[in-house]
Amino acid sequence: MEQRRYFEQLDAVDPLRNIRAQFDLHDDRIFFNGNSLGPPPLGTAKRLEEAMRRWRDDMNAGWWDHRWLQLPTLTGDRIGGIIGAAPGQVVVGESTSVNLFKLLCGAVELQSGSERSVILTDRDNFPSDLYIADGITRYVHRQATVRRVPVDEIIDQIDSDVAVVTLSHVDYRTAQLLPMRRINERAHEAGALVLWDLSHSAGVVPLELDAAGTDLAVGCGYKYLNGGPGAPGYMYVAHRLLPRFEQPITGWLGHTRPFDFTGDYQPDPGIARLTTGCPPLLSLLALDEGVTLTAQADPAAVRAKSVALSEEFIALAGARLARYGVEVTGPVDSAQRGSHVSLHSEAAEPLAKGLAARGFHLELRPPDLLRFGLAPLYIRHVDVFDCVAAMEQLLAEETADSAPRQ
Amino acid sequence: MEQRRYFEQLDAVDPLRNIRAQFDLHDDRIFFNGNSLGPPPLGTAKRLEEAMRRWRDDMNAGWWDHRWLQLPTLTGDRIGGIIGAAPGQVVVGESTSVNLFKLLCGAVELQSGSERSVILTDRDNFPSDLYIADGITRYVHRQATVRRVPVDEIIDQIDSDVAVVTLSHVDYRTAQLLPMRRINERAHEAGALVLWDLSHSAGVVPLELDAAGTDLAVGCGYKYLNGGPGAPGYMYVAHRLLPRFEQPITGWLGHTRPFDFTGDYQPDPGIARLTTGCPPLLSLLALDEGVTLTAQADPAAVRAKSVALSEEFIALAGARLARYGVEVTGPVDSAQRGSHVSLHSEAAEPLAKGLAARGFHLELRPPDLLRFGLAPLYIRHVDVFDCVAAMEQLLAEETADSAPRQ
Repeated sequence: MEQRRYFEQLDAVDPLRNIRAQFDLHDDRIFFNGNSLGPPPLGTAKRLEEAMRRWRDDMNAGWWDHRWLQLPTLTGDRIGGIIGAAPGQVVVGESTSVNLFKLLCGAVELQSGSERSVILTDRDNFPSDLYIADGITRYVHRQATVRRVPVDEIIDQIDSDVAVVTLSHVDYRTAQLLPMRRINERAHEAGALVLWDLSHSAGVVPLELDAAGTDLAVGCGYKYLNGGPGAPGYMYVAHRLLPRFEQPITGWLGHTRPFDFTGDYQPDPGIARLTTGCPPLLSLLALDEGVTLTAQADPAAVRAKSVALSEEFIALAGARLARYGVEVTGPVDSAQRGSHVSLHSEAAEPLAKGLAARGFHLELRPPDLLRFGLAPLYIRHVDVFDCVAAMEQLLAEETADSAPRQ
Repeated sequence: MEQRRYFEQLDAVDPLRNIRAQFDLHDDRIFFNGNSLGPPPLGTAKRLEEAMRRWRDDMNAGWWDHRWLQLPTLTGDRIGGIIGAAPGQVVVGESTSVNLFKLLCGAVELQSGSERSVILTDRDNFPSDLYIADGITRYVHRQATVRRVPVDEIIDQIDSDVAVVTLSHVDYRTAQLLPMRRINERAHEAGALVLWDLSHSAGVVPLELDAAGTDLAVGCGYKYLNGGPGAPGYMYVAHRLLPRFEQPITGWLGHTRPFDFTGDYQPDPGIARLTTGCPPLLSLLALDEGVTLTAQADPAAVRAKSVALSEEFIALAGARLARYGVEVTGPVDSAQRGSHVSLHSEAAEPLAKGLAARGFHLELRPPDLLRFGLAPLYIRHVDVFDCVAAMEQLLAEETADSAPRQ
């Protein structure tokens, strides 16, 4: 247990330990699937209780008296603090896929004066992002087409036909982290826009959207922003694009004066023009609490711990699991990796089951992939050690039970 | 106080009083704006506490283990019970405006083989519904146009150019209730589809969508369904249209097998094809609780009490307030009225203020309209009496304070 003590000592001096203390974590379970759903902050239950009281006592006056109506932009600005966006460029909307639909429609619309009609994307992008792009070419911008290419060919494929490049900043399977600034620059040279999906990077990977010259972005609220199950996602539109940015779902809350009830739609001059209808307040308040906690963490400390956890995980897996045929997949260079690591193993299914029985929860991608989210805000160094040790024990038992390997 | 006792006696035998007992109502305030936001059911706080526990203990496994993923269709079917829709035709989605966008796009798409290109609507429809229709003709179906006409001309305006008629079942200002079946029949004779917005009728007006031959509908979750601030709305697509109904926001949860992560979008064969991304779970659970409570009420009793409250309100206002220049607006015939009543008064603003100080909350539409939602599930007969009595007193005081009228 000499080695375990080393990891415990890392945790004892972890500059993020005061953030961890503000989560409502299960005593006996370690969740390595914060990349799917982050845990509840301690403050969330209180926010919901307060909302229930206000709902009963003030009813719809809460939209004004408690600033519920402003929350999409207030929470948006808080998210802006996490992703390097100055105020007034981020707003909370619907699910990530609906938000992506709005921004991708708007981006193609912005390019409609040109001959550009291609939406360029990674063929291995998150499937919903691919479906949304296809749907737009089928139902909205019928002259547009989607060009899917391998991710390492993206930069070379940005040509004068491309209207928009749309990419995940961190790949949901491999954790590959793309060079945002470089891709923005190449696209802008070619006259294309870029729309980033930050779902697997915001909250764990340093982001400087403004400084990187980013045009547009969407992201998820329930992963590393700890906003709760199905928390609404958010949209970013750079200030320079906002005045002429139009999205197709022109509902009343995107109107500049929604409560005048005028007959014609006049978009809000600011980022609220991206919104449509009443936000789901209870879920939005939970998101705001998650975002507020996440924003407290120093981004440099978050990145440093994320890299450390990943490198510890990879090193331990290499030293202890490789002999059982378990392989680390994805980028080996930390500079090109987000905050999750995947293992390939023929025994992935029994491993996931055995780990769950020991209190380690992670994501199984049948038939042979295990995905471990290493969320620096609450995963400890010792959790990584214990989890790899548990895998080693499970594999050793399995090997002892069955015929010896080779 | 003789007369007040009569109203108390009505409340004592109200068949809906056991439903009222299941709301978490403020002791000293009467909310006549349930047509904007219904009050919390007593069970909602418990549902949220349970969800918080499950979020902490089970994290994303809750989507399967607690059937969170099925909730949009489960709650949808419960709403179906309220609006007269057999199972499998209703699903909870995003805000009403986003849902309307999906269905209206899909309806025009369904008619795309024909020469029909007009979206026909009431020029006084809820503004967001008008904005959404305009946005569709501007950004999606660019060949389509919106034709806005006075509501009593709707039936005559359904001609061979009309692709879709879209209407509010109950007008948000006047409470005018439209003849759904008759308009459906006339539209179908002419080859048009009809899309209804049930926001101001579902939960207070008897609805038989299937029996009325309805094609499509959307509705709001936070008014008479008591789903909480910004609760997600719902969509209805009749079984007969569903197999060929396509909507443009093709996200992963509308896929027939979302967790296969295949590269191509294959819509779910059922109503789930209307969905897009992860639902905002906390808000969705609150909606489910509101719907479950609302569904317990006998629709005939709801309608009977709704009509009684409205007629009492109108009679009392006529007897006690007319002399102060207060007039009831909207339909006089209860058969053509939903469950709210509006008063016109030059003193609307001071009246609303004075009523609020006495614990009666309602909606002021400046400069001269007061809107009273008469939600039968929790508004008592005596509340109507007390509110009109308070108005009378306020008006009498004001008259005594100022110069005599005329």
